[in-house]
Amino acid sequence: MAMKVKDIVFMNKGDGENSYVKSAGLTLKVIAKTQPIVQKAVQSLFTGTHSTPLQVVNVADLGCALGPQPLESMSIVIESIVEKCGELGCEMPEIQFHLNDLAGNDFNTLFKGLSVVQEKYKNVSWFAMGAPGSFHGRLFPRNSMHLVHSCYSVHWLSKAPKITSEAGLPLNKGKIYMSKTSPPAVREGYLSQFEEDFSSVLRFRSPELAPDGRMVLILNGRQSADPTEKDICYLWDLLAEALSYLVSEGLIDEEKLDSFNVPYYNPSQEEVERVIDKEGSFTTEFSDTVVLEIGGKNAWSDPGLRIKGYRCFSEPILSHQFGEEVMDKLFDKAEEILAEDYKQGKEATKNISIVVVLKKKTNQTWT
Amino acid sequence: MAMKVKDIVFMNKGDGENSYVKSAGLTLKVIAKTQPIVQKAVQSLFTGTHSTPLQVVNVADLGCALGPQPLESMSIVIESIVEKCGELGCEMPEIQFHLNDLAGNDFNTLFKGLSVVQEKYKNVSWFAMGAPGSFHGRLFPRNSMHLVHSCYSVHWLSKAPKITSEAGLPLNKGKIYMSKTSPPAVREGYLSQFEEDFSSVLRFRSPELAPDGRMVLILNGRQSADPTEKDICYLWDLLAEALSYLVSEGLIDEEKLDSFNVPYYNPSQEEVERVIDKEGSFTTEFSDTVVLEIGGKNAWSDPGLRIKGYRCFSEPILSHQFGEEVMDKLFDKAEEILAEDYKQGKEATKNISIVVVLKKKTNQTWT
Repeated sequence: MAMKVKDIVFMNKGDGENSYVKSAGLTLKVIAKTQPIVQKAVQSLFTGTHSTPLQVVNVADLGCALGPQPLESMSIVIESIVEKCGELGCEMPEIQFHLNDLAGNDFNTLFKGLSVVQEKYKNVSWFAMGAPGSFHGRLFPRNSMHLVHSCYSVHWLSKAPKITSEAGLPLNKGKIYMSKTSPPAVREGYLSQFEEDFSSVLRFRSPELAPDGRMVLILNGRQSADPTEKDICYLWDLLAEALSYLVSEGLIDEEKLDSFNVPYYNPSQEEVERVIDKEGSFTTEFSDTVVLEIGGKNAWSDPGLRIKGYRCFSEPILSHQFGEEVMDKLFDKAEEILAEDYKQGKEATKNISIVVVLKKKTNQTWT
Repeated sequence: MAMKVKDIVFMNKGDGENSYVKSAGLTLKVIAKTQPIVQKAVQSLFTGTHSTPLQVVNVADLGCALGPQPLESMSIVIESIVEKCGELGCEMPEIQFHLNDLAGNDFNTLFKGLSVVQEKYKNVSWFAMGAPGSFHGRLFPRNSMHLVHSCYSVHWLSKAPKITSEAGLPLNKGKIYMSKTSPPAVREGYLSQFEEDFSSVLRFRSPELAPDGRMVLILNGRQSADPTEKDICYLWDLLAEALSYLVSEGLIDEEKLDSFNVPYYNPSQEEVERVIDKEGSFTTEFSDTVVLEIGGKNAWSDPGLRIKGYRCFSEPILSHQFGEEVMDKLFDKAEEILAEDYKQGKEATKNISIVVVLKKKTNQTWT
């Protein structure tokens, strides 16, 4: 049976040692770095052609996961609106957040965390809903969303690209993502799946956005045209190496490793823009590539922390393919390799994000 | 520290033997019996003074819990709209469900169940959100809801009534709810807390309803003026008797039993109507008392099934007060007493519901 991404792509649940709640510090750094862009997009909702000021601002967070990240994004939106309304002297609208993720996401933990935001913004009238479902399909009613926001989600594909020979044999043996040694068919398969999926994210959002609505999408991407550049392949190469070690130890089947590819893609800014133009529902108001230094003296200076950062989002999918029982061994081995790479300065040192702000084209209003 | 109802009132989680998902069959019967009333209220949304037909129908289910009950309520709403639109020859609107319960509710299990409805209504454009929070406060933006529905939730109080003597001593010793032997202060305390809480449910919903919006509230209530009539006190008297047995066995402290009262109230139709009139935001379009026969040859013919039905909603709150470790013993003892009562025909034989359909008064439109 084909792997159903919707059942296995989620962030580690709860708030334990390896949970996403505890370990997704990098996403928080990306949120902090891109805050001015989100703020500007939010505030542009108040300077458009609306005949009356918005009474309710509907905000969606696609693939929000759980923990401090969605809460931080909510705070940024609330503060941006408070600031803008202060500036314009207009009455504060009510704000309704729609926190979206696949139904396998730990919404119970997400909801319990909302009290933090409640404490922080007692004087603002805001509401939070959980919206379970895939952003590769419809999620919200027509013309309902003023701001659709997503940080580090839409680089997840709806399924792993099909990368086999005509005879059905795996073409990406010993690897789980694009790599320097992968044949061209692997890169082509990944790019093609990304184009299809990212295009569907845009197509399904288009009817859902209110006129003049904005989308801010932040994807984990890459800087160069080369889809196998070290900074993006490093993580998956590292895990593939650790998996190969487990194969050599007889702990997992070689066939399981050879046939597996992660449903994830790091696009370049140019690839993102090309899909947006081709899909046609949105105008690009802003587009940029944002670089964060990692490793060394920066974030993730410690291999242990970095492995936790990798584990909290890759474990559910790896555990589904290779078994829960080998996960500790897998990440221990990966940490060992990473520590050695740190000594030799071989680890990836950059985290790349592609950020776009999109506006719904006016002729796209659905009735 | 005062007991916080929002942390302890929830239905048993998951889908195990004592779960609400498996054991809340009585609520399903209430939903089936009141279906024509809900249907009529939904369809009345399409025959009002709306200048244009609704494009999106926003529906809220207050205190929806989890399992088949909220899914069944969604089905009734969808089918009512499909039928009405067929009749009127109008285009189907999109439907957005807001499934509300306290943040302690098991939303993860609730969301996983949505696939059942998805399979059933593939050709209808509907969306479901989880809306965590207390219905004794604001939950949704202004003027947003067309239908607010609630089955067997708003009889839960925001807190247990304070029933002590002037010296602070408990007045409802050995009981956990109103009972034949309770002094008048107990009944007064309960009624007063219900009036305050039910009034706040109405007051907080009023700004949230769209013009011409409807509320359908179904409460577990009583038939007569006497708030200690057998059919409503039976459950809590039974549990109090089982708790007293555990006290006599030294398994729980007498003081814990004496000071405890459940935050629950079974109002009469007249009490419900009086609060609605006094609060003033809504016109009552329909009001009735609905009786279901239980026990004997009807639903819950078996004491074991009936105890599971009681346990799935009372366990979290009892377990918080008396400890998880005594729950099996408590419900075993209660089943023993119940079985004896069945033999002697002493058990409650009626389940009473109060049903009201309310329309937002036109001068209550909030801007």
